[in-house]
Amino acid sequence: MRRLLIAAALTASLGMTQAAHADEGMWQPAQLPKLAKTLRAEGLKLDPKTLTDLTAYPMGAVVSLGFCTGSFVSPQGLIVTNHHCGYGTLQYNSTDKKNLIKDGFLAKTKAAELPGDPNLHIYVTESIRDVTGDIKAAIKPDMSPLDRFNAIDTAEKTLVKQCETSEDFRCDVYSFYGGYSYQLIKQREIKDVRMVYAPPESIGKYGGDVDNWMWPRHTGDFSYLRAYVAPDGHSAAYSKDNVPYQPKHWLKVNPKGLEAGDFAMVVGYPGSTNRYRLAEEVSDAVNWRYPTLLKVYGDLLGIIEKAGKADPKVAVTYASTVASINNGLKNFEGQLAGLNKADAVAAKREREAKLEQWLAAHPSAENRALSADIGKLRELIAQQRADRERDLDTNLATRGLLGTAIRLVRLADERTKPDLERDQGMQKRDEPRIKGSLEQLARRMDPGVDQQMLVYGLMRYVKLPADQRMHGLDAWLDGASDQAAIEKKVAALYAGTSMTTTEGRLKWFNADSKQIAASDDRMIELARALMPQIKQREQQDKAITGQFQTLRPRYMEAMLAWNRAEGRPIYPDANSSLRVTFGTVRGYSPKDAVEYLPFTTAEGILEKDTGKEPFDAPKPELEAIRAKAYDGYASKRIGSLPVDFLTDVDTTGGNSGSPTLDAHGQLVGLLFDGNWESVSSDWLFNPKLTRSIHVDVRYMLWVMHHLDHADNLLEEMGVPAKK
Amino acid sequence: MRRLLIAAALTASLGMTQAAHADEGMWQPAQLPKLAKTLRAEGLKLDPKTLTDLTAYPMGAVVSLGFCTGSFVSPQGLIVTNHHCGYGTLQYNSTDKKNLIKDGFLAKTKAAELPGDPNLHIYVTESIRDVTGDIKAAIKPDMSPLDRFNAIDTAEKTLVKQCETSEDFRCDVYSFYGGYSYQLIKQREIKDVRMVYAPPESIGKYGGDVDNWMWPRHTGDFSYLRAYVAPDGHSAAYSKDNVPYQPKHWLKVNPKGLEAGDFAMVVGYPGSTNRYRLAEEVSDAVNWRYPTLLKVYGDLLGIIEKAGKADPKVAVTYASTVASINNGLKNFEGQLAGLNKADAVAAKREREAKLEQWLAAHPSAENRALSADIGKLRELIAQQRADRERDLDTNLATRGLLGTAIRLVRLADERTKPDLERDQGMQKRDEPRIKGSLEQLARRMDPGVDQQMLVYGLMRYVKLPADQRMHGLDAWLDGASDQAAIEKKVAALYAGTSMTTTEGRLKWFNADSKQIAASDDRMIELARALMPQIKQREQQDKAITGQFQTLRPRYMEAMLAWNRAEGRPIYPDANSSLRVTFGTVRGYSPKDAVEYLPFTTAEGILEKDTGKEPFDAPKPELEAIRAKAYDGYASKRIGSLPVDFLTDVDTTGGNSGSPTLDAHGQLVGLLFDGNWESVSSDWLFNPKLTRSIHVDVRYMLWVMHHLDHADNLLEEMGVPAKK
Repeated sequence: MRRLLIAAALTASLGMTQAAHADEGMWQPAQLPKLAKTLRAEGLKLDPKTLTDLTAYPMGAVVSLGFCTGSFVSPQGLIVTNHHCGYGTLQYNSTDKKNLIKDGFLAKTKAAELPGDPNLHIYVTESIRDVTGDIKAAIKPDMSPLDRFNAIDTAEKTLVKQCETSEDFRCDVYSFYGGYSYQLIKQREIKDVRMVYAPPESIGKYGGDVDNWMWPRHTGDFSYLRAYVAPDGHSAAYSKDNVPYQPKHWLKVNPKGLEAGDFAMVVGYPGSTNRYRLAEEVSDAVNWRYPTLLKVYGDLLGIIEKAGKADPKVAVTYASTVASINNGLKNFEGQLAGLNKADAVAAKREREAKLEQWLAAHPSAENRALSADIGKLRELIAQQRADRERDLDTNLATRGLLGTAIRLVRLADERTKPDLERDQGMQKRDEPRIKGSLEQLARRMDPGVDQQMLVYGLMRYVKLPADQRMHGLDAWLDGASDQAAIEKKVAALYAGTSMTTTEGRLKWFNADSKQIAASDDRMIELARALMPQIKQREQQDKAITGQFQTLRPRYMEAMLAWNRAEGRPIYPDANSSLRVTFGTVRGYSPKDAVEYLPFTTAEGILEKDTGKEPFDAPKPELEAIRAKAYDGYASKRIGSLPVDFLTDVDTTGGNSGSPTLDAHGQLVGLLFDGNWESVSSDWLFNPKLTRSIHVDVRYMLWVMHHLDHADNLLEEMGVPAKK
Repeated sequence: MRRLLIAAALTASLGMTQAAHADEGMWQPAQLPKLAKTLRAEGLKLDPKTLTDLTAYPMGAVVSLGFCTGSFVSPQGLIVTNHHCGYGTLQYNSTDKKNLIKDGFLAKTKAAELPGDPNLHIYVTESIRDVTGDIKAAIKPDMSPLDRFNAIDTAEKTLVKQCETSEDFRCDVYSFYGGYSYQLIKQREIKDVRMVYAPPESIGKYGGDVDNWMWPRHTGDFSYLRAYVAPDGHSAAYSKDNVPYQPKHWLKVNPKGLEAGDFAMVVGYPGSTNRYRLAEEVSDAVNWRYPTLLKVYGDLLGIIEKAGKADPKVAVTYASTVASINNGLKNFEGQLAGLNKADAVAAKREREAKLEQWLAAHPSAENRALSADIGKLRELIAQQRADRERDLDTNLATRGLLGTAIRLVRLADERTKPDLERDQGMQKRDEPRIKGSLEQLARRMDPGVDQQMLVYGLMRYVKLPADQRMHGLDAWLDGASDQAAIEKKVAALYAGTSMTTTEGRLKWFNADSKQIAASDDRMIELARALMPQIKQREQQDKAITGQFQTLRPRYMEAMLAWNRAEGRPIYPDANSSLRVTFGTVRGYSPKDAVEYLPFTTAEGILEKDTGKEPFDAPKPELEAIRAKAYDGYASKRIGSLPVDFLTDVDTTGGNSGSPTLDAHGQLVGLLFDGNWESVSSDWLFNPKLTRSIHVDVRYMLWVMHHLDHADNLLEEMGVPAKK
């Protein structure tokens, strides 16, 4: 499940890197013509220029789900993505009596399709415009770091406002190469997305957490959604009057799939990578951040599991949180193992040393200035490190419902300002999302567990030195510092607030600043008391960010100049914008004397199956495999029905559900995970070991046809079922 | 460590099987000419007839250690075997201050060689003679089962007595094909065996229990011993006047080793297999015996571990017992997993059905009689099953020191008879061994732990139904049936015996039957009280064995006739007699999409090494690998220094230390283990998955030369160190 975006606590993506291997690289579409030679050599049959046109085939068919990627596969707005990307919507439509996750779901007609989780939107990238000039024009050389931050912030908001000409579109300014360049990306936002078809979990999540990040894999990680718009073609929330969205392009399916050694290409929305962080930042991650988060996540999981054992309803409420904490824990372990094994700190240090040697060998005034700025960047990183425990523990002590209360107090305040001056994420355009998440909160939060987590955070907080504390929080704690005293304080807080109910939360969402100021709700009171210092710290953070916005681009400038001089192609770190990565179907050697082949086969399901979750394939599937009833979907070369396969394309969280395309840009599978060795590739790409995992189109079609009888969809996709 | 003989509780080897694949088969040397065509096709360059001559090269160089195999590699009696086969002798010579297991040991001169564990003897097979006629002549058709058993027993003892012409030789009658034929095997017994060289445990046992039965493997499982005899050439116990034994043959070393696809041959002493057990017997093992033993072994391990935590000396005393229990547990788990996965019961049932079909299709009077006898064999198996809980729990309630007391009471009784009438294992020839094990007992037994184990056994015993109990034991228990009461009884037993000391045990070894009868030692008293019923049960067991001795050969006769008719070559189940197995260097696919290559390399040690036991290779080794300082021992084809390798030869416990020979009969490695999938091959050989694991001669030579500077031995073996 890796390729779901992982809690971004760790990373805002500000790096970039050079390619050590042709298959490393999350390329911006506009960069592809520069790589034409490599692309052709690796096997691409399309003209690379086609891939730069976001409104042409195949790019026009690829969409973002915010946290995943999908693609249109019919003129009627049918979208294919991963099973784990449609999971929330299956959960949303499940009841005690009808468990769609377990049983799977198939709408035989459009009328039978189910409304999606209201927060499930589809984003179709319509245009990408370089706005580096606009942003740079807003910056004056003598600005203070805070002024610089605010100037960039205002410039971004202005560009967004001008771009969002109707409710159909959502625009965002994306920073590339750590603020070296900026792009304004305009996306069509479709708000009515329905569940069309998902195989049962025993296919779609086969192997579950045990197989997560693992190869060999046998997961049928796919599901189908459909985009709907108002009858007039405009974006609209769910309504039964809405009609299927008609995309300009949809992917053609190649039911023959790929074989070992074939060219493969993945288009999608990778979330974030840190390939160009400095050695000291990698060292922080290895020596402090991952070990600390492993401890904190483990502790929080303990609280949830204990509560879940006492009350099965709580277990259900936190099921998806538990899944993502477990995924996070496994991820952090993988990061640590990978970074240590590759000695990533030493690798980054060596790269920096080489960069500085190159700058020293070309001693222009500009290069001397770059070198000096890199030194300053290192100082800034060291300075930021001093606050890391403070920031983590304060966050843990102000999270959950209290965090929501703080956001609502802040929102009421922001609403008193002109829209352009409001904080990003707190503007008018953001309000529907905020409201939606308040409405959804009860589905995944239990006030009792939330309360215990706050106690946990406060117990950490009270161990901070005095000068790192918050006056408002200390005043409220009133000297409470042991478990019993803090528990008492927190219990009183929860007893005296309406924030524990959806109704209460929406009341404060609708409240204005005067109502907030007058409130005697205990949690709103506390949030109000914390606000001045929260804002003060934010100003400090903004000033630090302002400094990073000066220095990080200087580092990147040096990297770009060096790499340009050495003739190495360059791509920016992932930042949730549309990217293309390409490579080859191939296995790898995970360790001495062991080879992983690039394809798993249906027989592997028989081998793994224990009859118990997560290795409990449906009986009809086991029978079909025993009878080798593959209906012509098997591969002669592989000698069986392929299930999943490996490629060496370069992907990360957010790429989940990305279409895997063949040399002609036709659909041959879906990316859904990376291998264990790829976990740390967010920091350092290892061409020998980093692999992406895809579900094979032949397995998808066979499951649809032979097991689930989704022949209506096969027909809609133009892939008539084989006999 | 598998290939050490595993506690034979499970098995007396009475089966035989047909070969499903050329590489299945533990062939008797005399059978090899019949396989000449296959052997030549697979690559053997020697004349297969050479292999039938036990006094010629290479067979004359291969020796038994009783529980392992070794081979002479110099004219001065130098023997190479596994590290784990020399382990006991390293332990025997270790002290608190000098840990030879940890540090390794190298004698630079013969004078520096260390005396072996007194029980470590070397057996060189001198001749094999078919004595089926002699045995059959002793049986009259109208004999009762018990008389038949006794007749065979006496015939065997007579043959042995005639054969053992001096103390230099040890003879035994081996039963083949479940009593269908018998061979008298004469072996030279060498009693002074010294430790010459062993690498440190961090090479010789690299990977430890974690890697036990596993591939990929990086264990340097080899060590060197030397055989000594009296100056006059006769066998003698350790004396500093003894001189190196001069074997007629010793193996020539091929320092180039093997490559993938090459012919390989293993000569050794496999302990026992059950390839021709009936389906019902396999079913008993799967459904009762392995699960029950897993529980019992686990419980006993728990007792030892608890005591070891409280007292580190106890932990040391039981270290090798714990290792072998763990090995057993892992083995039973592997057996269960393998037998279930292969559906071994169904496979055996299918084979039996085919056999019966063949008999029915050839309806002679003889075949009808065979068919009837197979039916009787099944009834006998069912009958035996009724006693299995009784036998197991009674054994557990009369083991440890009490078991030793029972053996001593029995020995005193047997000594009153003429030698030929004494029980096998209780004759004059057996007395030195019994005495030796009494002398050694204190090294691996702690009376406190032994006492707790007896309580455990008795707690099981008291749950047996009344008609399965032993009068003597019940009388002694005097109604005690709960933990506290039994603990009290046992404590009094241990308090009132001299059996807890070596001195006490030897006193009873030297005692005659009158002294035993007069003894008021509590444990001797109890043993004496149990003796009548033990003997009575033995008579019953002998009668049952007498029936098996009639029926099992009938089943085998049918199998032999059927296989002969179908033209399939036949080999008997392993029974600790000398065998030859041959095959090819090859990897395998353990599961879908995974391939295991046949060679591991030195770089794999770097990958695995954690610096902590059991992955704590010596620092100089890690440095040498990093520097690729392979001194010419590396393989060009493999691209590195090979460490261990796989072949598809057919081996089992007892084969440990067997020489791996190339097509010319030269030494290219040592067998030391089987893979995980081979664990259940004792019952059912799976040519796709069953592999033997060998340490590569190139790794052995490199470790000897580069790390341990054992150049004196390299020279003695005629392999001058490379530069």
